[in-house]
Amino acid sequence: MEKISIIKVGGKILEEEKSLLELLDNFASIDGKKTLVHGGGRLATTIGDKLGIESKYVDGRRITDEETLQVVTMVYGGLANKTVVSQLQARDCNALGLTGADMNVILAEKRPVKTIDYGYVGDVKKVDGIRLASLINTGIVPVMAPLTHDKQGHMLNTNADTIAAETAKGLSAHFEVSLVYCFEKAGVLMDEKDDNSVIPHITPQSYEELKNQNIIHSGMIPKLDNAFDALNAGVKEVIITNVENINSGVGTVISL
Amino acid sequence: MEKISIIKVGGKILEEEKSLLELLDNFASIDGKKTLVHGGGRLATTIGDKLGIESKYVDGRRITDEETLQVVTMVYGGLANKTVVSQLQARDCNALGLTGADMNVILAEKRPVKTIDYGYVGDVKKVDGIRLASLINTGIVPVMAPLTHDKQGHMLNTNADTIAAETAKGLSAHFEVSLVYCFEKAGVLMDEKDDNSVIPHITPQSYEELKNQNIIHSGMIPKLDNAFDALNAGVKEVIITNVENINSGVGTVISL
Repeated sequence: MEKISIIKVGGKILEEEKSLLELLDNFASIDGKKTLVHGGGRLATTIGDKLGIESKYVDGRRITDEETLQVVTMVYGGLANKTVVSQLQARDCNALGLTGADMNVILAEKRPVKTIDYGYVGDVKKVDGIRLASLINTGIVPVMAPLTHDKQGHMLNTNADTIAAETAKGLSAHFEVSLVYCFEKAGVLMDEKDDNSVIPHITPQSYEELKNQNIIHSGMIPKLDNAFDALNAGVKEVIITNVENINSGVGTVISL
Repeated sequence: MEKISIIKVGGKILEEEKSLLELLDNFASIDGKKTLVHGGGRLATTIGDKLGIESKYVDGRRITDEETLQVVTMVYGGLANKTVVSQLQARDCNALGLTGADMNVILAEKRPVKTIDYGYVGDVKKVDGIRLASLINTGIVPVMAPLTHDKQGHMLNTNADTIAAETAKGLSAHFEVSLVYCFEKAGVLMDEKDDNSVIPHITPQSYEELKNQNIIHSGMIPKLDNAFDALNAGVKEVIITNVENINSGVGTVISL
């Protein structure tokens, strides 16, 4: 099977010109098939504030009410997405901006209300891997915003890490998928204080050891659990690195 | 050749729930291949005002400066476009929202500065009819926002009538194209005061007569001139009607 790189970047990277340009240049220079998934970030909060829309939180979790949904649809699906698409086009990368609603590529359901009503937040139900693969095979580079829909007329705010993982799984029947998560650091570090201590390779066995030694702990555990989920669902490898290194080979490779 | 309907609606139609729902229901029920082109409208001005971005005009013409470009990119490419796309998906119409930057489907150039600097306004250079036709042939329904790009990293604000006409021309090598412009009235009227006086058919010959009799005058002349331009470039027919009638056969049909 042919290879594909699915690169996930946080919204913060899009907000600063320096990191945005670095991302665009490095992403455009990746050889072969590829897909970019971008987060939303603080720009939606900034613009929501200016529009007089208050950010609402319950137990520290952000709530997407109807007004907030309009803001994230504008900012993630419009401003952030089209900025990236037009800049990639300038770099001869044939980008196509997508939300889950476009061609129904990512169908989701509004998160059921249990203790907290998160509002218009989507949990992914189905990625149309066939449609995406057929577009990618004609030379198109999808650029995916963190938005899905419920096929009942509602857009839904959806976590970009989830979109990246579900897209990677959906494409794994068609390609040998490398799923690349960009963070601030060049990979998972052996020593948090030493940026050069990147662990080059993590397997299920070494993961258990690293957890037992408390080298991997707290926030990194759910990220790695998600990585192993994707691998168990058919993704070939998950790479954790930073924007600087998406095309350099430096980073932590996670595989079965 | 197979038929296609390209429907252009103004931004105003998207802003009022009643007319939006009428559009969505009527558009979704059109049989066969189709494309929707939507305008921007006042929502960008409303949101721009709330964000403290002043609308700038020179000689009564709106200027798209950098801030305004960000607002129209958000509002037309994000909010308006994705609202329509998600609502069409709910009606089993497999919509794909597009700006000209997406897949480089509409390449434009920033309007040259002569007496007025319009700012980030695009004049269409090239529509990729092959790419659009191949998508449409797989069942996709393009929903086009009034935005293009210059392939140098800039989005450009572009008149929706122009996008509709240029897309119609670009698709005329692949389909028998009906280009439908939606207005307030059900067609070109014989008597401006009588909404039931729709002229059913206009040809180049009858157009000359109608102009000589002053039945067609002022603002309708450039619209009809553009319609004949499209016909001369290969479009099969141009229809002027209102949203109520996009699927009813009522309206003014313009053909050679």
